[in-house]
Amino acid sequence: MQWDAWGDPALAAPLSEGTSTLIRGMLGVSGEITLPTLDPSTVTVSPSCLSDADLAGLRGIVGDGFASTADADRLLRAGGKSTPDLLRRRQPTQDAPDAVVLPATDEEVAALLAWCEENRVAVVPFGGGTSVVGGVDPDAGRFRAAITVDLRRMDALIDLDEVSQVATLGAGVTGPDAEELLGERGYSLGHFPQSFRFATIGGFAVTRSSGQASAGYGRFDDMVQALTLVTPRGTLVAGRSPKNAVGPDLRQLVMGSEGAFGIVTRVSVRVHRVPAVTEYEGWRFNSFTDAAAAFRAVAQEGVMPTVMRVSDEVETALNLARPTEIGESSDDDLPDKQVPGGCLAITTFEGSPTAVAARAGVVREIFTAVGGQSLGPGPAQAWEHGRFSGPYLRDALLDIGVGCETLETVTSWANLDALKTAVTAALSEALPEPTVVMCHISHTYATGASLYFTVVYRQDGEPLEQWMAAKRTVSQAITDAGASITHHHAVGRDHRPWLSAEIGELGVDALRAVKDVLDPAGVCNPGKLV
Amino acid sequence: MQWDAWGDPALAAPLSEGTSTLIRGMLGVSGEITLPTLDPSTVTVSPSCLSDADLAGLRGIVGDGFASTADADRLLRAGGKSTPDLLRRRQPTQDAPDAVVLPATDEEVAALLAWCEENRVAVVPFGGGTSVVGGVDPDAGRFRAAITVDLRRMDALIDLDEVSQVATLGAGVTGPDAEELLGERGYSLGHFPQSFRFATIGGFAVTRSSGQASAGYGRFDDMVQALTLVTPRGTLVAGRSPKNAVGPDLRQLVMGSEGAFGIVTRVSVRVHRVPAVTEYEGWRFNSFTDAAAAFRAVAQEGVMPTVMRVSDEVETALNLARPTEIGESSDDDLPDKQVPGGCLAITTFEGSPTAVAARAGVVREIFTAVGGQSLGPGPAQAWEHGRFSGPYLRDALLDIGVGCETLETVTSWANLDALKTAVTAALSEALPEPTVVMCHISHTYATGASLYFTVVYRQDGEPLEQWMAAKRTVSQAITDAGASITHHHAVGRDHRPWLSAEIGELGVDALRAVKDVLDPAGVCNPGKLV
Repeated sequence: MQWDAWGDPALAAPLSEGTSTLIRGMLGVSGEITLPTLDPSTVTVSPSCLSDADLAGLRGIVGDGFASTADADRLLRAGGKSTPDLLRRRQPTQDAPDAVVLPATDEEVAALLAWCEENRVAVVPFGGGTSVVGGVDPDAGRFRAAITVDLRRMDALIDLDEVSQVATLGAGVTGPDAEELLGERGYSLGHFPQSFRFATIGGFAVTRSSGQASAGYGRFDDMVQALTLVTPRGTLVAGRSPKNAVGPDLRQLVMGSEGAFGIVTRVSVRVHRVPAVTEYEGWRFNSFTDAAAAFRAVAQEGVMPTVMRVSDEVETALNLARPTEIGESSDDDLPDKQVPGGCLAITTFEGSPTAVAARAGVVREIFTAVGGQSLGPGPAQAWEHGRFSGPYLRDALLDIGVGCETLETVTSWANLDALKTAVTAALSEALPEPTVVMCHISHTYATGASLYFTVVYRQDGEPLEQWMAAKRTVSQAITDAGASITHHHAVGRDHRPWLSAEIGELGVDALRAVKDVLDPAGVCNPGKLV
Repeated sequence: MQWDAWGDPALAAPLSEGTSTLIRGMLGVSGEITLPTLDPSTVTVSPSCLSDADLAGLRGIVGDGFASTADADRLLRAGGKSTPDLLRRRQPTQDAPDAVVLPATDEEVAALLAWCEENRVAVVPFGGGTSVVGGVDPDAGRFRAAITVDLRRMDALIDLDEVSQVATLGAGVTGPDAEELLGERGYSLGHFPQSFRFATIGGFAVTRSSGQASAGYGRFDDMVQALTLVTPRGTLVAGRSPKNAVGPDLRQLVMGSEGAFGIVTRVSVRVHRVPAVTEYEGWRFNSFTDAAAAFRAVAQEGVMPTVMRVSDEVETALNLARPTEIGESSDDDLPDKQVPGGCLAITTFEGSPTAVAARAGVVREIFTAVGGQSLGPGPAQAWEHGRFSGPYLRDALLDIGVGCETLETVTSWANLDALKTAVTAALSEALPEPTVVMCHISHTYATGASLYFTVVYRQDGEPLEQWMAAKRTVSQAITDAGASITHHHAVGRDHRPWLSAEIGELGVDALRAVKDVLDPAGVCNPGKLV
C-alpha cells in the first residue's frame, strides 16, 4: 500500500487527457492543481517522542528488527485512506506514530500493552491501513506518545477444521493471503470488501466489515465463530460454539471494538469449499425504486444470490459512459442501448450445480415479476473483473483538483427512499454545484438495505475543510433521517460525534464501562469509538 | 400456566395403566409415589416481607388492581418449569416473591425500578414463567425483598411495518398472541420453541430463544431488529438499522441479559408473510452419524428447510414404540417397519411455491446422497401436530416416581460425536441404572449443531438432590467436552457455575461492568447470569 494513495502504484489509473477535460468542464474546475502528491523524502515528519531507552524497551519485546522510529516506517502508518487522509498526505508536514512495532505472538502483544501502560504510551492497532474513518490515526490522547502495532507478522492459517468448515487465521492475514492459504486446501473465505487486497482479518472483525458477497456468505460478523482479544487486563477468548444462549454474545462486543478494548490477534471464521459452479447474470430495471423492490422481495423470500447489487440511474449512466475509469464494466460487454435510462443490477450465484440453479431460478422469477430484464452474464462478469479498482480513480481525480469520496449508511426498506433523498440533498447543498452523487445497494437484508454513495465535486481552496464540512452535514442528515451512521466503515474518529445520537448516552456508557474494565489506563486506540 | 406443572391442565396427558406399568418395570421403579401434587390451598407460602406501606407504594405506581401480595398470586410466580421447579412445587412449603406487580407502560417499569432501588427491593422480570434454568426465581439477593414484575399487560402489537416486515411487540405478548395479532394482518413471526404456547416476546429476547423453525427463520436473536431496555439508569434503545458497523452490537448485549441489566419492554422483530405453501417430508437415515452428515452438508450448502430435525436411534425407537405418550407421531403415519433401527428426520419448507420447490429439491438431493430414504409427508405432519405436547409427559412421569428432564448444548460438527458420547455417559453414570437417554438435533448451523437430550430415570428418595447432582455432573461434562453450557435455555441461576469456564473471568468482568453501569444498585434479577 502506498503511503499517500490507494493501493499498488502499478495499478494506479491516471485519467486520459480527454476524460480530464470532460470532468473538469462538467464540474467547472479551473485546472489549477491545488495539492500535488509529494516525494516522501521531502516531507517533514513529526519527530518521535520516544527515547532511545523506549525504543530499546520495545525491541526487547519484539526483537531488534521489529520496532522502528524511522520516518519512512512511521509515515507508512500515518493514517488510513479516506479522502481527508489522502489530502493530509499531500501536506508538507505529517503527523505520524512515534514508533512502529511488529509483534509476532499473543505474548508479545500482551507485553507491548503492559509496556505501554507502564510507560504512558497509546497503542494503535494497524492491519492493512485501509480505514476510511480515521480508525488508525496515531492519536496519543492524554499519553506522551502513540505507537502503531502493525499485525502483519501474525499472518498464519493457524487451523483449518474441514469438518466444521472453520478456519482460524492470524489477525494480520490479508484478504488475498486468506484466499491463497485456504485455496491450497480447497476452501474460500468469500469476504470481498473493496479493501480486500490490503485489509486484514483482524481489521474485518473489529470494524464489522461487509464484503461484496455478503448476500451469500454474510457479513464478516456473521462469519466469525471466535476471536482472541489481548487486552491490558489479560486475554479474552470469545466464542465457544456456533450460536448459543450463554448470556450476551461477547463476540458481538469484540466485533466493532476498533482496537479500543485491546488487540484482536486471531479470528476463527466460517469458510466454504471453493464453489463448484459460479453463475453470473446482469439485469436492467426501469428505476432504482423497481430494483429496490425486487431486492426486497428476494431478501424477504430468503433465497439469496451470492452477490446482489444495483446502481442507481446516475451510477449506471456514469459507469456506462466512462467504463474504463470507473473500472466496473466495459463497452464490449454492455452496450449503452441495453440500459437506456434504467438501472443496472448484477447477481452471482456460487455453490453446487443444483443449489445454484435452484437459487437462480427463484431470483429470476422475482426479478422478472418486478419488470427486470436479463442482460446475460456479461455485466456481472465485467463487474467482478474490475471490482477492486474503484479507489484508484479517487487519487487520479485529486490530481486534477476534483474531490471524490464515498460514504455509506443503512436503514429499513420503508425508510430507504427518504434516506437516499436526504443524503443526496445534503451532499448537493454542502458542495459546490454541480456535484455528481451516485448510489448503489450492495448489502441487502430482509428488513432493509445499505446505501453506498459516491460524490464527485469541484475542490475549493481548502479541500480538507471543504470535505470535512460536507461530511458533517451529511452525517447529520443521515442521523436525522433515522439511519445508521455507518453500515460497514465503522466509527473510528470521524463518526464519533454521531455515536451517542445512534446508541444513546446509556449505550455509550455501557461501552465505556467495558473499555474501563479491559483497558483501565485507556491506552488502547484513544480517540476512536468511545 | 399451572402453578405446579406444565401448561394447561386440560391438555395434561396422564399415562395409561399399561404404559405406567411398562415404564416402571423397565426402570425398576418400586411404585411408591414419593412426591404427589398438592392442592395450593394446603401449601404454606413464605410470608411477604413487604409492609402495607410498600404495597401502597407499588399500587401508587401501577394502580390498585395490579400489585398483590396474595399467596395465590405469588405462588403462580414462584419459579419456572425445570424438573427441580416441579419437584419444589410438590413441597409443603414454598418460597415465592414478596409481591407481584403488573406494569402497563415503560414509565411504570421505570418507576418500579426507581422504587425498588430506593426501597432496597430486588426485581424479577416474569413473562410466561417457562424458564428451565431458574431464571425467574424470586431471589432477593442482598436486598430485603423481591418483587416479580409480570409483563403480561404489555401485550400489544405496537407497530407493523409491512414494507420492511418488522413488527414491534410488547414484551408480554405470548407466542400464540403474536401469531394471532400478526396473522390478522397476514404475517407470522415463525418462532416456535417448545414453550411457545406460554412464553413471551421479552423472554425470547433476553434468553436468546431458538425455535423449531430456526433453520428457516433463524434464532430469535437473528430476528430481533431493536429492543427497548428500561434500566435503573434510564432507557436504552438498541438497534437502529438491520445491521451496521456502529461499534459493538448493543442488541447482542441486551439479548441474553436475562433481566440482569434491566427489563426489556418492547422488541422489534423480523416477520414474514404467512407462507403460501408448506411442504412436509420425513426421512429415514441408517444412523445418527449419517443423519448428522446430511444435516451438515445441507447447512454448508446454505439452502435450508424451514424445520430440520432428527432423532437419534433411541429417541426414534421410543417415539415409534409409544407415539401417543411422546406425542410426536402416530402409528398410522409411521409404521415401525419403515424405520427399523434407524433414525427419523423431518423437514418442512415454507415460502412461495417456487422457493419451496427449489429448496426442497436441493435438500432432497443431499439427503439422498447420504443414504436418506424419503418417508413422505406423514412423519413431519405428525411431528408438527404434537410438537408442543412433550412437557406434559414429564408431569405424568413424576406422578409415578419417574424423573424426566431435558438439557441441551451446542458444538462444532467436528466435536459433535464426542459431545454426545460424553453427555450420555455422564447422565448414565450419575443416575441409577437403567437410564434412557435420548437425543435429537433441532438447530443446525454451517459450523455445528445443537444436541437436545431427554433423560428418563428412576427417582430415589431425595429426587431434587438426585437431579441436581446429575445436572452438575453433566454440566461439567459438557464444559469439559468444549461445548456450550446451553444452546437456547439461557444461564439463569442453574448454569451460572459454568459461566466463567465458558466466557472466562474477563468475559464475566465485562458483563459485570455493563451491569454495574446500568443497574448500579444491583436490584435487577439478583443471582442470575452474573
